[in-house]
Amino acid sequence: MNYCNDCGATTRQAIPVGDNRQRHICNSCETIHYQNPKVIAGVLPTWGDQVLLCRRDIEPRRGFWTLPAGFLENGESSLEGAIRECHEESLARVDNCHLLGVFDIPYIDQVYILYRGPLTAKAFAPTPESSEVALFNQHDIPWGELAFPVVEMALDIHFSQTEQPLLASHHRVTRPWRPTPRNR
Amino acid sequence: MNYCNDCGATTRQAIPVGDNRQRHICNSCETIHYQNPKVIAGVLPTWGDQVLLCRRDIEPRRGFWTLPAGFLENGESSLEGAIRECHEESLARVDNCHLLGVFDIPYIDQVYILYRGPLTAKAFAPTPESSEVALFNQHDIPWGELAFPVVEMALDIHFSQTEQPLLASHHRVTRPWRPTPRNR
Repeated sequence: MNYCNDCGATTRQAIPVGDNRQRHICNSCETIHYQNPKVIAGVLPTWGDQVLLCRRDIEPRRGFWTLPAGFLENGESSLEGAIRECHEESLARVDNCHLLGVFDIPYIDQVYILYRGPLTAKAFAPTPESSEVALFNQHDIPWGELAFPVVEMALDIHFSQTEQPLLASHHRVTRPWRPTPRNR
Repeated sequence: MNYCNDCGATTRQAIPVGDNRQRHICNSCETIHYQNPKVIAGVLPTWGDQVLLCRRDIEPRRGFWTLPAGFLENGESSLEGAIRECHEESLARVDNCHLLGVFDIPYIDQVYILYRGPLTAKAFAPTPESSEVALFNQHDIPWGELAFPVVEMALDIHFSQTEQPLLASHHRVTRPWRPTPRNR
């Protein structure tokens, strides 16, 4: 951040009075510009014993499989955002969702909030963000071709606990991870 | 947002190509400036059958009782943020925390992520943010003097389910709420 959103003047980095962290502060109007983690809302869609995954057609991790998820927008709840992202990425509809867990990724300032719910119909299709959308049984999951560690964590929780609602609230922290090559 | 953080030029509001929402876009460098909900991380601290509450000494809702919670910072997990805020607001320490629930407040673009955990010692005190810090039994909770609906929701979940870990993941959406007067 080089310039103040409010007045256009340059900013400095300094610790405000009563604070203990460096912030961007406007040199003219003295507005403090806080920067905070972003929420990614998503769904683990189920169809009987199967789960729906999307093969990413966008970077990062193009070609790898993921759960439908994306940045939460202002004005929507995390569940609304999760359902919206599911439809945008897979054209699938889910309902009766329950919270699956919260997955922190502090090294990239992200918090995933993932739900789990059944598809309302066996209806889904590729989209601009997903080159393939498919249902997988547990033994067919492409474990070596998952896009992000949060996807693997969520699938592990799901298959270890298939009751609806879940028996416990889950919280995980994702640490830096070396992506696997596409064809290993 | 009137000016671009990156280059200081003026911004316009428009829907970017491939998007469906109005964004702030720089008139010079064309950077799209997204705005997203903020995460508030907090704890419901327990001591036996009692819970710890803080009487707010800051606006909004100065004088009302709340759970220790505050804005999640970049680089920390929601649990780390919750524990930090608990100490900043009450000087209390908690451990063995479990996720209590996710509480969306879409009309103010906030998502609360609340944990529950026991105090490590019966040690707490007022702070610049809290004029009083105290333990309450269920029948002593100042229900009419709670600061926010999310506090009431979290206490309801806690007292309805005191096992550790919780039997289910909880998700709630908070709709606009008319604050109660201080002395009703």
